[in-house]
Amino acid sequence: MIMNKIYLDNAATTPVAEEVFEAMKPYFTNSYGNPSSVYTTAQEAAMAVGEARERVARLLGASSDREIIFTSGGTEADNLAIKGTAMALKSKGNHIITSKIEHHAVLHSCQYLEKYLGFEVTYLDVDKKGFVDPIDVKEAIRDDTILVTIMMANNEIGTIEPIKEIAKITREKDVCFHTDAVQAVGQIPIDVNDLQVDLLSLSAHKINGPKGVGALYVRKGSKLTPQMSGGAQEWKRRGGTENVPGIVGLGKAAELALENMDNKNKRIKKLRDRLISGINKEIDDVILNGPEGEKRLPNNVHFCFKYIEGESILLNLDMLGIAASSGSACTSGSLDPSHVLLAIGHPHEIAHGSLRLTLGINNTEEDVTYLLEVLPGIIQKIRDMSPLYSV
Amino acid sequence: MIMNKIYLDNAATTPVAEEVFEAMKPYFTNSYGNPSSVYTTAQEAAMAVGEARERVARLLGASSDREIIFTSGGTEADNLAIKGTAMALKSKGNHIITSKIEHHAVLHSCQYLEKYLGFEVTYLDVDKKGFVDPIDVKEAIRDDTILVTIMMANNEIGTIEPIKEIAKITREKDVCFHTDAVQAVGQIPIDVNDLQVDLLSLSAHKINGPKGVGALYVRKGSKLTPQMSGGAQEWKRRGGTENVPGIVGLGKAAELALENMDNKNKRIKKLRDRLISGINKEIDDVILNGPEGEKRLPNNVHFCFKYIEGESILLNLDMLGIAASSGSACTSGSLDPSHVLLAIGHPHEIAHGSLRLTLGINNTEEDVTYLLEVLPGIIQKIRDMSPLYSV
Ligand SMILES: Cc1ncc(COP(=O)(O)O)c(C=O)c1O
Ligand SMILES: Cc1ncc(COP(=O)(O)O)c(C=O)c1O
Repeated sequence: MIMNKIYLDNAATTPVAEEVFEAMKPYFTNSYGNPSSVYTTAQEAAMAVGEARERVARLLGASSDREIIFTSGGTEADNLAIKGTAMALKSKGNHIITSKIEHHAVLHSCQYLEKYLGFEVTYLDVDKKGFVDPIDVKEAIRDDTILVTIMMANNEIGTIEPIKEIAKITREKDVCFHTDAVQAVGQIPIDVNDLQVDLLSLSAHKINGPKGVGALYVRKGSKLTPQMSGGAQEWKRRGGTENVPGIVGLGKAAELALENMDNKNKRIKKLRDRLISGINKEIDDVILNGPEGEKRLPNNVHFCFKYIEGESILLNLDMLGIAASSGSACTSGSLDPSHVLLAIGHPHEIAHGSLRLTLGINNTEEDVTYLLEVLPGIIQKIRDMSPLYSV
Repeated sequence: MIMNKIYLDNAATTPVAEEVFEAMKPYFTNSYGNPSSVYTTAQEAAMAVGEARERVARLLGASSDREIIFTSGGTEADNLAIKGTAMALKSKGNHIITSKIEHHAVLHSCQYLEKYLGFEVTYLDVDKKGFVDPIDVKEAIRDDTILVTIMMANNEIGTIEPIKEIAKITREKDVCFHTDAVQAVGQIPIDVNDLQVDLLSLSAHKINGPKGVGALYVRKGSKLTPQMSGGAQEWKRRGGTENVPGIVGLGKAAELALENMDNKNKRIKKLRDRLISGINKEIDDVILNGPEGEKRLPNNVHFCFKYIEGESILLNLDMLGIAASSGSACTSGSLDPSHVLLAIGHPHEIAHGSLRLTLGINNTEEDVTYLLEVLPGIIQKIRDMSPLYSV
């Protein structure tokens, strides 16, 4: 098989940065000790985990490294935040508020609590651009509400939610607030104390770190029932031998993300806006999903193309060496249209014709030029074969 | 810091084998696609995950690769097996049977079910060598028993449990049977169809694979409620982007474990038996914990030294470049004596004086010679300082 030469699916996953891989390397075959052990080889590993924890704390502006819990990824961080809070606060109430456009890691965690633990969940609507209205959050909060969980940025359409406004409301009402920041981290500046969130999830493989590792920020004083029952690792909040190389990789990726954020994102935003205006200009019957400008993730481009199946676009792009997505990688293989596109008001036939292009550190102006060169022809070719389309 | 030159803590974790690391490497910076995506780069990753799944299935004698679910480690595999079965079968009953010497990943999963989901758990006693009596399992099974979980081999004292006999009983009574085989895999031949277990946990980092990845074998037809709520990965049984390099590493480690099992373990058993007889011969007032011979893990040596603190032995060994453990790495930092040593009948003061030496692929005759040279002096030195000890 040949590799895709142009990778435009950085929201699905990113390549591990060379510096990140170099940082991880010693912890496979050399400093391989179990951080819980007492001898030198093990303490080396423990120190590396500690340093990574500080780097992640720094990226988020956390007050202490004790507020960082390493997990196996964004999914586990979301599960721990939501189930862990719900189970810890069950005696206070059993109502949770979320939105209709959350990632499945959040939505399915909520459904698990509904099904197995008797929780009640309110799924808030969003507007046409994918925004949650803070007023809706305020109105949904009841006396028995124990948790609000709203994502910082949507993984499909790139909408950046008004997290600070929502946190202000949850704080006033004394309700715990979690945000899934898996797509936002590294793309927009995040300071958990400025934002005043209680819990925040992130994932290494979305910021040029390795797959299989993530973290949950947990504000000091938050009650959380561990979901990975086992040893006393991670401040007794997550059992299991630490994934030392993975954690070291996440730490390095966090450091790089912080160092490079401004320059990287200025450059990537320009590429994004060239893609958006190019597609708008060159192709008819397209709908840009999500907002434009500052409220859109710097790396996200997401369109619906009328009279078309998203899958066919992807296969045609792949044949030309371009990797792209129809939206969320996690529902791939399923024929259901995206719950996000339905939530912003698209009918099924429009939702099916989606294309997400997400930029990363390796993309260049030439990648954008090439995409804009080939995409109009691909769309035209598919439409010409479609019974739904007539000129 | 200097490295430990002699590593005798392979039950805590093992170095990643060179071939395993080489197999993993391409999946960090090159074939980094998300296996759920459709394009070439992603399908490469998906194929690598598929191949790893077949290798793990082969190691266990599983009938199909659909019976293998990748997790973030042994702890998560245990959590998924126990909580997943309990939640799936709750309408059938709410009684679970386990033993007092299980790993905390099992014990704490059971306690979670007691505390949050109203399950009742029977914790079976073991005999002085750490054996569970199959008759005890039989007698503990009630009409509302839905799960028996007994480890294949104990991580502290190396006892290999009569899993086949227990499985025969659970099968007759139509009760689901899980075994935590984290310490047994790669050390004793395992065939899930010969043993007739329904669920079996393993962890990569115990068999010279990477940390942060494991697997659960799930017999076809077993009901299991996913515990990592999220995407449709792992046959819809475990959400979260796959840890591709980790999974590839586990696959390679599984392949190597199968290829090398006989030779490796014959060699390691000899080292083990030299250690056991050497310590018995050279040092007074010692107690070998666990059985001798074929019912003991090939790589496990575990003694209690009277009138002594295990911690001081470890620190003295570390100063001489030897890495060893007092028992379970996961309870390190805690002052409680091992629950396993209490369960086999030791009083606290004996349980505190434990030393576990666990062998691995890199250990040599010279390592054993050196250990036997230095240990008697260390023990004598510590005893000379102890108020409890008088000659
Ligand atoms: C918004 C969001 N949340 C959670 C996740 C899950 O993270 P992970 O893939 O690390 O499990 C993803 C990515 O898949 C995501 O985009
Ligand atoms: C018997 C046993 N079960 C479970 C585990 C947990 O596995 P992991 O470290 O991969 O989480 C271990 C090791 O720590 C173990 O020895």
